[in-house]
Amino acid sequence: MDILKEIKEAVDKAIENYLYEKEPHLLYEAVRYLPSAGGKRLRPIIACLACEAVGGNFIKAIPFAVALELIHTFTLIHDDIMDKDEERRGMPSVHKKFGENIAILAGDALFAKAFETASFINDASVAKRILHNLAIMAKEICEGQEMDINFEKLDYVDERLFLEMIEKKTAKMFEHASMGGAIIGGGNEEEIFALQTYGRNLGMAFQIWDDCLDVIGKNIGKPVGSDIREGKKTLLYIYAYINSENKEWLKNYGKENASDEEVQEIIKFFEEIGAIDYAKKKAREFSNEAIKALNKLKESQAKKKLIELAEFAIEREK
Amino acid sequence: MDILKEIKEAVDKAIENYLYEKEPHLLYEAVRYLPSAGGKRLRPIIACLACEAVGGNFIKAIPFAVALELIHTFTLIHDDIMDKDEERRGMPSVHKKFGENIAILAGDALFAKAFETASFINDASVAKRILHNLAIMAKEICEGQEMDINFEKLDYVDERLFLEMIEKKTAKMFEHASMGGAIIGGGNEEEIFALQTYGRNLGMAFQIWDDCLDVIGKNIGKPVGSDIREGKKTLLYIYAYINSENKEWLKNYGKENASDEEVQEIIKFFEEIGAIDYAKKKAREFSNEAIKALNKLKESQAKKKLIELAEFAIEREK
Repeated sequence: MDILKEIKEAVDKAIENYLYEKEPHLLYEAVRYLPSAGGKRLRPIIACLACEAVGGNFIKAIPFAVALELIHTFTLIHDDIMDKDEERRGMPSVHKKFGENIAILAGDALFAKAFETASFINDASVAKRILHNLAIMAKEICEGQEMDINFEKLDYVDERLFLEMIEKKTAKMFEHASMGGAIIGGGNEEEIFALQTYGRNLGMAFQIWDDCLDVIGKNIGKPVGSDIREGKKTLLYIYAYINSENKEWLKNYGKENASDEEVQEIIKFFEEIGAIDYAKKKAREFSNEAIKALNKLKESQAKKKLIELAEFAIEREK
Repeated sequence: MDILKEIKEAVDKAIENYLYEKEPHLLYEAVRYLPSAGGKRLRPIIACLACEAVGGNFIKAIPFAVALELIHTFTLIHDDIMDKDEERRGMPSVHKKFGENIAILAGDALFAKAFETASFINDASVAKRILHNLAIMAKEICEGQEMDINFEKLDYVDERLFLEMIEKKTAKMFEHASMGGAIIGGGNEEEIFALQTYGRNLGMAFQIWDDCLDVIGKNIGKPVGSDIREGKKTLLYIYAYINSENKEWLKNYGKENASDEEVQEIIKFFEEIGAIDYAKKKAREFSNEAIKALNKLKESQAKKKLIELAEFAIEREK
């Protein structure tokens, strides 16, 4: 069986097993709502592949991989509340379906479950290191989210600050997935560092591509142009802002009730001014950096898959 | 110096040290808002005393003690959002002061910081055990909060269910504080179990007394009768519900905009029907159980303080 399929099945099964709680009923229904709905399981897959790429058996990385997916889900739930997003993966978001109180609580419970799950890592000193890293990562995700929210109020954000924000909000988790997998797999410090570098750059590529998908994507599980309606300062926005003399397009950017036509106009403008191409190029650069970092690793089936993932990150349509 | 004062000073200082982050500014202002405002530091003190009571030096328990305080604060912040409480410790609650988004995020960041802090416990196998327990505890607090919210919608709650709710929402944290301190202090399993029992019973006594303080307290940092206006199913309510033939008093229970007179009427009714005495008696029983559990421990200054704490829990006026 293909290793990706094997990992994904093991992760799906482990998620069901680790989320064993039943009562209070409504809380755990909300807790399971997103994790059980499937998804790409990108972060768990990266963790498991990194573990294999340094010679470990990916099964050892499963508790950690599940923990990552649960933290990821927790951040989605709370972010959707803050951003007032009513859709997620083509379904009503958790707060839309269960109400805001349950959504806050379900996020908290998932956070707790993530640490419970990661604490099942067998080796005590590895567990301590991983749990420490996960905590730092979670903190940085909060910092990134706060920066993201702040940016919405600003007219313009410096590209460097923007990159810092997505590094914290998104790339850190890829970085930790990849690094943690390598630690659990017993990699040496050079391998761990190589995979850390891989993960961070992959995460950057992934997020910038995601911002592109908001305007060029198909079936991405949320309405096209959500970022535009929310006034998100994406790389596309930043590029367009610097390079446009006429700032006429700004009047509909961040307009919550903008019509589909108004959104399409901005997308067309982004295209014409080269903002989409610029962001795609940036994503490609990060993807290349990620792949380059893997040079330090021996050849393996897992390494090959990690390279494919870095390529996939900037080719996917959803 | 008195050991309690010594512990409290060490905890206060450690909280400042562990919360070292500065940026994003608003996020960390919100993160520090409650922890830096002081407070009884009850949970950290219990953890440190338990550590000393089994022969350990309380300094070893400090990272864990701080982690408990941060988790406690995190739950207060999120609970205040859910309960729409606008005051906390006589100050505006975090969401009132910083807005709901920052409050959600500050709670999340404190949760992450708690695990980061606890991961500084030196011995890896102790750290793994403690982090595992903290995660389970945090999960149970969420379950207790969910039960508490559900109860608000019900007319009547069985006393057994009520006790399960406060055990999860409040007593578990005291249980873990005391147990964790004993683990870190190097206690044997009998001592750890004794302190676990002590903590759980102390927590129960503490919470039931807290419910009494809502109607008889002075300067408790929130308006008298908050539970009454919110329709909380406290032990006082449950006793009064079973023992009153005339349910006239129910019409103003859970009335958000009840006047002070209406609230005072209910308090007077609670007094006359014996609900306050009943709850006080229950609190006393739990406090006695807590003290009894300490019989397994050798005499020490710390043990004496733990006994005093169990007495204080049911005598305090705020």
